[in-house]
Parts: sequence; structure tokens; C-alpha cells
Amino acid sequence: MNNGQRYEPLAVPRRVILGPGPSSANPRVLRAMSLPIIGYLDPAFFELLDDLGGMLGEIFKTNQRAFAVAGAGSAGMEAGLVSLAVPGDTVIICSYGYFCERQIIMAERLGFNVVPLRTEWGKSMEPQVLADALKQHPDTQLVVGIHAETSAGTIQPIEEFSRLAHESGALFMTDVVTSLAGCELEFDAWDLDYAYSGSQKCLAAPPGISPVALSERALEYIRNRPTPPSSWYLDLSLIADYWGPDHIAHHTAPVSMIYGLREAVGMALNETLETRWERHEANAAALRAGLDALNLELPVSESDRLDQLTVVKLPKGVDDIKLRTQLLDEYSIEVGRGLGQFAGKVIRIGLMGESCVPANVFALLNALEKTLPEHGFEVANGAAMAAASAQLAKKPSPIYSA
Amino acid sequence: MNNGQRYEPLAVPRRVILGPGPSSANPRVLRAMSLPIIGYLDPAFFELLDDLGGMLGEIFKTNQRAFAVAGAGSAGMEAGLVSLAVPGDTVIICSYGYFCERQIIMAERLGFNVVPLRTEWGKSMEPQVLADALKQHPDTQLVVGIHAETSAGTIQPIEEFSRLAHESGALFMTDVVTSLAGCELEFDAWDLDYAYSGSQKCLAAPPGISPVALSERALEYIRNRPTPPSSWYLDLSLIADYWGPDHIAHHTAPVSMIYGLREAVGMALNETLETRWERHEANAAALRAGLDALNLELPVSESDRLDQLTVVKLPKGVDDIKLRTQLLDEYSIEVGRGLGQFAGKVIRIGLMGESCVPANVFALLNALEKTLPEHGFEVANGAAMAAASAQLAKKPSPIYSA
Repeated sequence: MNNGQRYEPLAVPRRVILGPGPSSANPRVLRAMSLPIIGYLDPAFFELLDDLGGMLGEIFKTNQRAFAVAGAGSAGMEAGLVSLAVPGDTVIICSYGYFCERQIIMAERLGFNVVPLRTEWGKSMEPQVLADALKQHPDTQLVVGIHAETSAGTIQPIEEFSRLAHESGALFMTDVVTSLAGCELEFDAWDLDYAYSGSQKCLAAPPGISPVALSERALEYIRNRPTPPSSWYLDLSLIADYWGPDHIAHHTAPVSMIYGLREAVGMALNETLETRWERHEANAAALRAGLDALNLELPVSESDRLDQLTVVKLPKGVDDIKLRTQLLDEYSIEVGRGLGQFAGKVIRIGLMGESCVPANVFALLNALEKTLPEHGFEVANGAAMAAASAQLAKKPSPIYSA
Repeated sequence: MNNGQRYEPLAVPRRVILGPGPSSANPRVLRAMSLPIIGYLDPAFFELLDDLGGMLGEIFKTNQRAFAVAGAGSAGMEAGLVSLAVPGDTVIICSYGYFCERQIIMAERLGFNVVPLRTEWGKSMEPQVLADALKQHPDTQLVVGIHAETSAGTIQPIEEFSRLAHESGALFMTDVVTSLAGCELEFDAWDLDYAYSGSQKCLAAPPGISPVALSERALEYIRNRPTPPSSWYLDLSLIADYWGPDHIAHHTAPVSMIYGLREAVGMALNETLETRWERHEANAAALRAGLDALNLELPVSESDRLDQLTVVKLPKGVDDIKLRTQLLDEYSIEVGRGLGQFAGKVIRIGLMGESCVPANVFALLNALEKTLPEHGFEVANGAAMAAASAQLAKKPSPIYSA
């Protein structure tokens, strides 16, 4: 029934999202997104915030503060930077990927004395690099290092980074956008001060809200810093106060996003974090077995690579945009492009949260097997899916359910 | 079927939300929130952004830039402040309510030379006050004035403010959080430079995204300012570039919120803005007739008041918190508290978007009629609903449908 209305209900294509994020959202999470709105100062909503704060604490493995910043992962990033140092402070930023460079851009805009530690993309950074820098800059206020660099596909030794930062009297902030709920992360045991994530990766919720954890030490710093953060919206102490026992009003909370996040976090805890990590490991191993059978090269070494995100070198002559467009148009599969120094040279395959199931591994390997020869790169027929299947027989993916 | 899971699907109470926002969301909008996720760089998503940008242009009545900031209305507020002036610049902020004071706090944090023009709450500000201030501060970079002050329930002469600002060579930024789609607003005809709104008021979408309009003049200023905005996340030129024809990647867009906003904006355009304004007028008039029959006092004069939000003085002896708690607990109706200098002295009744229907007017008047006597304020039985009914017979509310 149209009734002559100009705008009919929105329809969107069904995609298999295997890029760096967003990944797909779980149907139960999507249903929660459509629950009726309640007020952000309603006692029933405060109860939800209290529950969700505790649940996020389990996900981050912290007994300190866990809550969510009302914006994308980049809002969580900026909230940390603007809150944890004042203009003129020395801020060391470990840089081994595109999102590290984004942190540097933000930190420069905020007027910090930024010390970038640039190391090779596609490798874990040696903690010694940071140790040396801290010796050179003993007055450093804040050290920043990403846990799972989504542009380069690497995991980084943030526990070490954090230890070195604290030895030097600095705070340590990290990006766990791609790692949270996808691989081991221990906020308290690793003595982190601030970690921000996204809802749209291993948590399988829609993008637009940034779950974070904050140490009491960092909160204390924000409450006592000489001048308040230049951003009111992203002041972590004000956001912590809204999520805290007194629920002091700040901006209007994104009610539906919080519904979705609660549902996604509840489902991750139902699955258990350990099983979820295992699921990411098993499907990534199957994907890599298949890519290997296609003779595709993975630039990140075994010890440094992520399960959530696999970087694949494009074979000579294969055009990045043409390949990705064909995958999207003919298979409705999205994979990610290379960023920064990897632009045009790699594709990035995400297997995160909802997207991380064997069916998607097979669908993508099939699509690559069929498309790559059209781009001049010959592959053996059927070998990729057989290799993935054999790998899954060795190490099965735990069943993923609502 | 629980399966022994720790977390069952979220359930929330059903409320009649008649506070200052969020208001309820339309069911069709809530359905759109649960559509499957697609990537924020997917050509299908770019098409949606292009459509929505044009639709928002119709809502703001602009042929310039219309898009959305990924955060609450306060993110739209901060995006304007951080983008439209550099630290040290003189920024005049008209202040006649709580949200004006929030702008002042933000502007001070950003290091501007803030000139607050404080006038009486509950009244429209005389443009002469601004004219005088601009004479005293001819170097003013930015003038800020809220269109509909939700804390005080007043409408303000922003067309005049904008004219005066431009005569003095300043930019003019305004808050249309409560006015957009609820009463007349003409971005181009009134020559505004930046207007930000919320999704959760007269647009009837969930809170968490801030629709905005930006003049080409203001965009040009941001592109050429001596230093970039201290916020990367809220830099309006970067957000405009993502929504613009080249769709330059910025942060990950809040996909589901954009679905919901598109649906809400489409429904507002289906209804037509003029009919929507009429609906807000008719139901507010009915509410006021009923409140009058209850002998309640409305502190804002007829010429200055809003239809979307009615401020009601609490009768002597009626306790704010007790009354609102009873309305919520016994009637599941949320009304708003007073803020700032109005705290404890008034309640605020919103009739916006989805909430703005006769049924809600009657439900609230009935609840007030039944509760007020318990708080020591006697009222005549049945008079309020009869008065509202008579008013609606004179000026009916247009039928509101999906």
C-alpha cells in the first residue's frame, strides 16, 4: 500500500560483509535496535546502563570503569586523546598503520608535542623502540599504541607498551577496535589506562557506538588536570559520570545503539569470550588455508598476524578496484581495500563477530577462485575450498548461535 | 527457549514520552533500524547518503549542504563551535536558557573569547541586545543563538540575529534541535550559516545522530581557516566531504542510525512540513487549553512560546520529583524536569513528532488531573480533557500516519 506517498520504506541490499568493519550485525541485535525508545534519564534506562557497564567490564576484563562513548570508534579515539593530555604535553604515538596515523593527526590538532614512533607496517613493533623513546622523553604524559592494527593486520605487544609507559610515569591508551571480543585482551591484568573499541567488529552490533574501559588512575587524572579537555562532548570524566552511580546528565544518550550494544555484549557473554576467540581462530585458519591453496601471499608473518583481519597481497596485474567491484556486484561480498602505504597493493578480509562463520569462508574462497582468473591470475579449481574444509576438520569452528 | 543462556533478549517498558526529548520513535522508523548492515563505503550506502542529503535539504529548506553528524545534538553543537572559530576568536553567545549555557561552556573550553549575552529565561531576546554587543565587538567571528530553547520553552528571532551577525561580518550558527520539522525554519531564506538538530524530537527517530545544514560560506571558512579545528571527529568540512559527491572516507558512519534518520525524514516529507507544523500547533493548543482548565500557570507568554515544548509552573507545594515519579510509575508517562534556574520550579511537556497526537494530550491531562490533588493541588474533575477536546474541535490535529 503506497497511498501515493513520496517515500516508501527503505530497502537495502543483503551483503556478505567481509571487510575491515562494519561486519554484519546479529539478527537478535538488529531486533533489539527496534525496541521502543525510553528516556535517557528514565530509571529503567539507568538500570540498563548499570547492567551494560558490568557486562562491558566482563568483556574488557576490568573491575574499573567500562561504558560507551556516543560515536564511532574514532570518537572513542579522540575522547582518549583529548581527555588524557593537555596541549603542550608530550604524547608518544606508536605508528605501524593507518589508524596510528589518524591518532597522530588528532593529537597534532589537539596541540600536543607529538612524538611519532614509526615502524614497519605488517610487523609487531619492538618494545625497545618505545623504551628508547621514553628515555629520550622522560616527561611523556601519554603513550598510545594500537592493539590490533586493522590497516596492517597486525597484533601488537601492548602489555609491554603499557608496562614501559608506567615505568616512565606516563599513562597508556590503546585501540582495541578490532581486538575486543575477537582475541585475548585483559584490561586490568595488563594494567591499561584507556581502551576504546567499536561495536561493529567482533561484537556484531551496528557501527556508531564505542565501548571503552578507563582506569581509576586515568579518571583521577582527568578530574584533576589543570584545564578541562577542549571537548565537552568527548570528556571521558563527564561520560563516566553519566554511566556512574549518580547518572549525572550529559548529552542525550543514543538509546537504540545502547539497546543494540547490550544485546551484542550479552550474546558474546552467552557464547563466552574463550569460545568466541576460538571461533575467530578456527575460521581465520580455514581462510588462510584456502588463500594458500590459491597461491595468494599473506604479507604478515604468523607470529604478528590477526585472526579477525587477514591482509592479502594482490597478485601482479590484479586491479584492486576492479576485483573488489566484481566481488560486490556479482557475489554481494564486500572485502576491504588497502589504506595508506598498502593502498592498491592488498585487500583486507575481515572475519569478525557475526561474519565469522565457515559459510562465509567458503563463499569468499569460491568467489575469489571464480574471479581471479578473469583478472589474469590462474588458480586451481576447487583446491581452496577443499583446503579450508580440511583445516576446519582439524580445528572446527564452534557453532555460532543466538 | 532460554537454553540456559545468561542473557535473554532485552525488554524495555512501554512509555508515553512527553518530555523534552527523546520523544517516541515511529514504528516504521524502528523497523528501518533493524535492516541489515551494509558497509559505509558501499556504493549502495553512498546512494542512500545522496538521497538523504537531498531530503534533509528539504527539511532545512536549503540548497546548500545538509548532512548528519554522528553523535547526539550536543555533538552537532560542538561540531559547529569547533569548526567555525579558532581559539582566541571573539564568539558572541546569546543566552536565554540551559542549552545556551552549555554552548558557553563548550566555547570556553575551546579557548574562544566568549561574550555571553544573558537575557531573561522564558522570553525572546531583543535583537537590539545583539546589535549593541556587535558594536562593542566589531571583530566578532561567530554569533550563536538557539532557535527553540528547550529548557525555557521559547522561540527566538534567529532571522534577525543572523542578519545582524552578517552585517558585522560574523558567521551565524543556531540550534534547531527542537524546532526542526516542528515549526517554521528556513535555512537559506534566513541566511543561516550552520544549524544543528537532533533526530529524537520532531523527526521521531531515535536519539544519536544530529542532522545539520551548513552554508557554502561557512564551509569555505573552515577549508581556509589558519589552523584546522582541534577536533578531527567533529570537523564539519571532513564530514561534509564524506557526504559530498566524492564520499571521502572519514570515521565509520553509524549505518543503522542513518537508516532510521532516512525513514524519519521520508515520513516527515510524506506528511509535508506544513501539515507537521499544523499538527504541533493543534495538539499544543489542546494541551494548553487543558492545562489552563487545571489552573496551571504557563510562564512563557503567547508570542514567545513553543508548540513543541510547554513549560508549566509547578503549583506551590507540589514536589517536582514526587510528581514526575508518580506520573512515570503509575501512568508510564515521562515529562521533563526544569533545568538550571528553572530546576524544581517547572515541569516541561514535550509534544513532538511521534508523541504529538491527541491521545497523548488526553492521557497526560487525565494523569495530571488524578495526581495533582494527591500533591495538595485541587483541580476540577473532567474539565481539562473537556477543554482540550473543545480546542481540538475548533482546530483539529491532522491525522498522523505512517
